[in-house]
Amino acid sequence: MIALDRAQCLALDAADPLRALTDEFDLPDGVIYLDGNSLGVLPRGTAARLQDVIAREWGTDLIGSWNTAGWVDLPQRVGDKIARLIGAGPGQVVAADSTSLNLYKVLTVALDIVESTAYRDAEQPQDAPRRVILSERSNFPTDLYIAQSIAAQRDCELRLVDNPADIPAILASDEGAELAVLMLTEVNYRTGERHDLAALTAAAHAAGALTVWDLAHSAGAVPVDLVGAEADFAIGCGYKYLNGGPGAPAFVWVHPRYADRFRQPLSGWLGHADPFAFDTAYEPAEGISRYVCGTPPILSLSALECGVDTLLAAEPFGGMPALRAKSLELTDLFIALVDALPAELGVTVVTPREHARRGSQVSLTLAAPRHEAGYAVVQALIARGVIGDFRAGDPRDLEGHPHILRFGFTPLYLSRTQVFDAVAHLREVLDTDEWRDERFAARGAVT
Amino acid sequence: MIALDRAQCLALDAADPLRALTDEFDLPDGVIYLDGNSLGVLPRGTAARLQDVIAREWGTDLIGSWNTAGWVDLPQRVGDKIARLIGAGPGQVVAADSTSLNLYKVLTVALDIVESTAYRDAEQPQDAPRRVILSERSNFPTDLYIAQSIAAQRDCELRLVDNPADIPAILASDEGAELAVLMLTEVNYRTGERHDLAALTAAAHAAGALTVWDLAHSAGAVPVDLVGAEADFAIGCGYKYLNGGPGAPAFVWVHPRYADRFRQPLSGWLGHADPFAFDTAYEPAEGISRYVCGTPPILSLSALECGVDTLLAAEPFGGMPALRAKSLELTDLFIALVDALPAELGVTVVTPREHARRGSQVSLTLAAPRHEAGYAVVQALIARGVIGDFRAGDPRDLEGHPHILRFGFTPLYLSRTQVFDAVAHLREVLDTDEWRDERFAARGAVT
Repeated sequence: MIALDRAQCLALDAADPLRALTDEFDLPDGVIYLDGNSLGVLPRGTAARLQDVIAREWGTDLIGSWNTAGWVDLPQRVGDKIARLIGAGPGQVVAADSTSLNLYKVLTVALDIVESTAYRDAEQPQDAPRRVILSERSNFPTDLYIAQSIAAQRDCELRLVDNPADIPAILASDEGAELAVLMLTEVNYRTGERHDLAALTAAAHAAGALTVWDLAHSAGAVPVDLVGAEADFAIGCGYKYLNGGPGAPAFVWVHPRYADRFRQPLSGWLGHADPFAFDTAYEPAEGISRYVCGTPPILSLSALECGVDTLLAAEPFGGMPALRAKSLELTDLFIALVDALPAELGVTVVTPREHARRGSQVSLTLAAPRHEAGYAVVQALIARGVIGDFRAGDPRDLEGHPHILRFGFTPLYLSRTQVFDAVAHLREVLDTDEWRDERFAARGAVT
Repeated sequence: MIALDRAQCLALDAADPLRALTDEFDLPDGVIYLDGNSLGVLPRGTAARLQDVIAREWGTDLIGSWNTAGWVDLPQRVGDKIARLIGAGPGQVVAADSTSLNLYKVLTVALDIVESTAYRDAEQPQDAPRRVILSERSNFPTDLYIAQSIAAQRDCELRLVDNPADIPAILASDEGAELAVLMLTEVNYRTGERHDLAALTAAAHAAGALTVWDLAHSAGAVPVDLVGAEADFAIGCGYKYLNGGPGAPAFVWVHPRYADRFRQPLSGWLGHADPFAFDTAYEPAEGISRYVCGTPPILSLSALECGVDTLLAAEPFGGMPALRAKSLELTDLFIALVDALPAELGVTVVTPREHARRGSQVSLTLAAPRHEAGYAVVQALIARGVIGDFRAGDPRDLEGHPHILRFGFTPLYLSRTQVFDAVAHLREVLDTDEWRDERFAARGAVT
């Protein structure tokens, strides 16, 4: 049921059992935060937990905390918690480094596997080695940059698809035989469009390729079933829907069929089988632990644990499926309210309307003559306490890749009434030309 | 002057202008902390600063803090502060990732440079490509592991020297023509022995090789002059003498002659020339900023800044040279007191006695029949509040690489009296056989 007036929203919110989860967070008064896809909000428990990590674990217990506070296992402990959100088993995930670095690890290993004799003999034997990493042009740039670095080193090709809808046909075509790895972000950072992870994984496997999934906009946002989908590798971000704090460590998952069998290149000492033996020769730890590299940033990693705990707090309420149901209700409501805006405001929903093709984000674009006003409109909304963000379009193809106003919907702390109010603010900002105020034109280094 | 009785120590401490710097730290009562070479202590300002980062910058200002709190420039801001401690200029250092990851970046670039046509034409042209990374067997293992990974990828050889004193002769020999990179940790993590960074850099250059210096036990511990020594690359650790907190981000320096000219492989989006243009093609930022990879862990990086500030607080007192003078006084005192222990206790100083060959750490070993007791002795000392640590020897060569009792001396917060008392505790632990208590035998995952 979609509530299109505010009283209905209030009534639905009052009846919402997930409302209790709002208590997990400290949000500033008057803020409608629609940017959890960029930086998750501060969990209520984080400040006290960090104070304890700093004052007691570090300040008082000092090096003893590597053992007594379990610092040495923190990548695995937090990884096990994240695993519950993405359909992975215990011992299959570690929290470590950044999304970019984890991608570097798994993409290298994926290419090593595809080049291995055993794989080449088993998977559609062919003369020409598989040398193509397939991705989409609007994948998040850091993924493309890392793939470019690896492709240059290994004489591979990063091939970019303009329209992600073409990917299944490419996988099924003769091109499929060239592919080593299909590398995609499940939910697109610009459009909020969601790939069919299971179907594309199956199609990639049918083509003899492996899959690397970036779950930056999936983990904590949509239910993911990595093991069920028989995916090969996945990475993801700690500071978006996982509420881990700015620049929180990322995570990495490797299917158990590969985790023990290949070495990742960033072979730091905490991925060693016995780091405190201080051996001169690298011997990788069993399983996913070999994907840990150097000493982890304990403060940021502890904050990530608090963030992940806010998602796990939803387990008694139905967990990710319940969060997904509310997320779809919120994004359905937002889309319906935007659709109901006067046509002359020129606001268009970019994100697909089918539930299965959508993450937890809705992206809008403004038709001419306001197309270039997107940045200022977002700034005017922020000044009103409605926080979304702006992603510039591709100047060479504004038709196909327009400027985007992004709004993320986190069911842990957002209400239907807030969604209703957000669209009301958007209408006022456009109706009144408030966005034309010059203070909304100035851009910082980070937009 | 070395004070060999406690009253002299007290008098010298009372007259020490650096004593004021002790106020920068919160140390537990009754603790004599001789492990700043493993984990620096908690600066007094860190807890409040992190509370502000968490509650205000993240909790209240949210994504706006990327601009308003300067999160986006934090790797450069902290890097500039670290630069003042290691003889580097502003804009030459970034704080990022871990020591292991930064080594992966610079070692790759160093090999790329050596393989480049321009370099090969300029530096002692020869037929055979330079394929050897030279290091020492007792270098910190993570450095060896990363070098092994890179060597395997590139068909290079990691050649390990047993006795670091042999390195100058190797560089001057025919072997020098095979060398691509000399990769050393300036101060050895086991023995506390310090290489002559300037002389070895010059010798490596004379052999046509480049240098990669790990400053993990140097930054904040001894004065370093990277630019003066014409070094090529350096990396280092944030959580030892820089007091940045457990697993604090590391740092990386590249000589300006190379910083702009080569691409490092871990090409994440925040090393892009214009990250927020979201270009599909990687274009490295100018200078050292290209050595940033993914989004930095802001909480841990903010704590690192507090830690570095405790070192910069020494600048009005004479800075690193003044800290070095006190460090040498403390380690001289410790060595003299250990030398004065009864011979039958069998305590031997492993660290070189010459000032120039010593970092800010003194390592001891126990002669038979107590050689195997090192771990328990350290645990007994910790129970008394004297915190050092233990590093097991090489079981194949305990003569050459014995078990080590490590003691780090941080002049920011240590007094001569504490050093005096520490050795008195050591004597009592050995005299009374207190270390034989079974509670000192149990080992945690981290020793």
